[in-house]
Amino acid sequence: MSYRMVDLIQKKREGGAFSKPEINWIIENYVSGAVPDYQMSALAMAIYFKGMTTEETAALTMAMVHSGKEFDLSSIAGVKVDKHSTGGVGDKVTLILAPLVASFGVPVAKMSGRGLGHTGGTLDKLESIPGFNIEKTEAGFIEQVKETGIAVIGQSDELVKADKLLYALRDVTATVDIIPLIASSVMSKKIAAGSDAILLDVTVGDGAFMKSVEDARVLARTMVDLGRSVGRETVAVITNMSQPLGFAIGNRNEITEAVQTLKGQAPQAFQEFIAELAQIMLQLAGVEKTIPEILEHLHNGAAYAKFVAMVKAQGGDPSAFENLTAPLKVKNTLEIRADKAGFISCEKALGIGIVAMKLGAGRATKADKIDFEAGVTLAKKVGDAVAVGDLIATLYSNQAITEELVREFTDNLVISDEQVHQKEILEIVR
Amino acid sequence: MSYRMVDLIQKKREGGAFSKPEINWIIENYVSGAVPDYQMSALAMAIYFKGMTTEETAALTMAMVHSGKEFDLSSIAGVKVDKHSTGGVGDKVTLILAPLVASFGVPVAKMSGRGLGHTGGTLDKLESIPGFNIEKTEAGFIEQVKETGIAVIGQSDELVKADKLLYALRDVTATVDIIPLIASSVMSKKIAAGSDAILLDVTVGDGAFMKSVEDARVLARTMVDLGRSVGRETVAVITNMSQPLGFAIGNRNEITEAVQTLKGQAPQAFQEFIAELAQIMLQLAGVEKTIPEILEHLHNGAAYAKFVAMVKAQGGDPSAFENLTAPLKVKNTLEIRADKAGFISCEKALGIGIVAMKLGAGRATKADKIDFEAGVTLAKKVGDAVAVGDLIATLYSNQAITEELVREFTDNLVISDEQVHQKEILEIVR
Repeated sequence: MSYRMVDLIQKKREGGAFSKPEINWIIENYVSGAVPDYQMSALAMAIYFKGMTTEETAALTMAMVHSGKEFDLSSIAGVKVDKHSTGGVGDKVTLILAPLVASFGVPVAKMSGRGLGHTGGTLDKLESIPGFNIEKTEAGFIEQVKETGIAVIGQSDELVKADKLLYALRDVTATVDIIPLIASSVMSKKIAAGSDAILLDVTVGDGAFMKSVEDARVLARTMVDLGRSVGRETVAVITNMSQPLGFAIGNRNEITEAVQTLKGQAPQAFQEFIAELAQIMLQLAGVEKTIPEILEHLHNGAAYAKFVAMVKAQGGDPSAFENLTAPLKVKNTLEIRADKAGFISCEKALGIGIVAMKLGAGRATKADKIDFEAGVTLAKKVGDAVAVGDLIATLYSNQAITEELVREFTDNLVISDEQVHQKEILEIVR
Repeated sequence: MSYRMVDLIQKKREGGAFSKPEINWIIENYVSGAVPDYQMSALAMAIYFKGMTTEETAALTMAMVHSGKEFDLSSIAGVKVDKHSTGGVGDKVTLILAPLVASFGVPVAKMSGRGLGHTGGTLDKLESIPGFNIEKTEAGFIEQVKETGIAVIGQSDELVKADKLLYALRDVTATVDIIPLIASSVMSKKIAAGSDAILLDVTVGDGAFMKSVEDARVLARTMVDLGRSVGRETVAVITNMSQPLGFAIGNRNEITEAVQTLKGQAPQAFQEFIAELAQIMLQLAGVEKTIPEILEHLHNGAAYAKFVAMVKAQGGDPSAFENLTAPLKVKNTLEIRADKAGFISCEKALGIGIVAMKLGAGRATKADKIDFEAGVTLAKKVGDAVAVGDLIATLYSNQAITEELVREFTDNLVISDEQVHQKEILEIVR
């Protein structure tokens, strides 16, 4: 079947729903270059205004899956569980969750995208470990999961070719924040990557794509239904991204925090948050564990051992993070202290992420090089009490830390008289 | 001032109104190539949904005017009046109106676009006169108007560069039918072409861009206000394009009908329609004439003499149309006759235009060559009584006229028991 793209754009513009053959035609011809960017961007804008039905989103997702290589993990025994986060500031969850789940014998075969967040992605954090190799052949990837039960590698360039093109286009045409397009982008990559079940971390708040719980809920529901409709059991957790996740922001800084957590040395609340996510991932693999049983793997060294095994299997040097108290190797550090007493009521994730980027921890453009040592360490989080002069955060950079940047950082802090409490997990969508 | 196009697309997507500097920036950077088509098409789609204010449309129009050459007709004495039609089937109005108005001493310096209608544009019709040259230098164009009082030439490639780019893009991205973009496209060309006053013929119906009188009224009002806001007195006439205009469709065929009308040999109703338009154009130039005074110029040879003067000044051979009864030089003619008695109640302009195109009179794609002799001559119009066997129309082609094409033609005809009357001028918007 052949169509004219202009007619399909018009159909969507007028609120029509595409058939599966129409969606397949659009994606095939966009990837081949027969449909140019200027038609695709007009269509994306029409979708912004007119949306897509559940059936259209499912068809789009599968058309995108078929646009690239589909990984076959069936030679790995057991139920493979994947995990995806819609991203946030200080998000080192994968680094902790993957080895923790793998320590229960559930194989984790994960491909991560590099992303262009304000702070580095999971791949950047792993690459801050000297020698760590994020590139593997398909065979090498599968072999590692069979041998060590875990691998986290860079997303193959062959995976979901349509997404690479479409994402770059949406980024410059104000068509990023469209739920069916976000859902199909995330889910097509998870489905093509071959795992049997998927845990989605849908972040919400200032530092996330989704600014409201309502939007996050719609996105979560869309993705859960999508996964299930193609036979991949999927659960979404809506998590709070109004303040940074944990205390560390920056690449080696977050590796250190991840290792501390894997060794049971993180604050109890953060360990419990991770354990709740792990419990869902394990359930998806058919393994029922209590929270205390899961926390035990942080304290008895099982989760950390799995992390070390992965690092070694991918050529990394574990001695790099064995000394957890080693300071970040930067020229300049600067302490932010409380100028009044009260409770921290706000630490804006987005603003703090941007400051961390300016310190060198992230990329403003794709071409920028990340400084693995740069970052921010929070001493206090929302809800914590502070006295005048208490340390709130330390900034680390190899560049000069200007007064302007300090002001930019403190603009994201609020100290109030009343204590507020923030939950990490807001909702679970099954 | 510099902007990021993605931010401007987002602004419009969210219903914002652009400032004049923002619009200037968009058009300048689109014409220079710094803003790519894929951003412009996303913006056009956002404008489809969110519209533009009167101020934005005026700013866009002037930014487009400034994107190309602006003609200066001030060396021609008198008030120069231009005329534009949004197009239709059998629309030979310019060919009659321009010399008729010029015959009253009002200078007509008109540039016509070639267009890609189902049937040829004004330029194609003029080029069906052997030797007629539609290309002139600016100096030659102005010189001709000074000497003969009239010139109709092809639109300069230098005129409104943004429109050429934008129109081609809108055509393939389902963003043609957007009133502020249509208005700015038409008015930017009229303003850049340099006349002092403008008569707009906004066609409405099956064979026109505007399908409803309501839409036509909005477009007419937008353009009249636009023209006036930049100091060009503008009047719009909303005309009926549910059936073809006049009796002839096809290039030489329409020249013949135009010449018949210029000689006072057309049906009275059609002559009066033209006279009403001429009266408005003359008013725009400050010349008050009654309808009888105007009709007199069709009967006393004044209008025809002006037409002949223009044809000669542009290298054309008037002997080509002196013998008005000369048949069209085609291999095949086919008569369509009434299969029942009654009144013609419908002759669909669009359908008949497409048949004329298939006979050879128009272009399906820009590359197609027009057959100047091909066309359709209607013997009856809506409201006319017919008996069984009466001639309704004759088809002319150098290709075989298939049964399928005859069926396609008759599908556009309806004969009813009740007589309907159609007006040509529906409204005047001042």
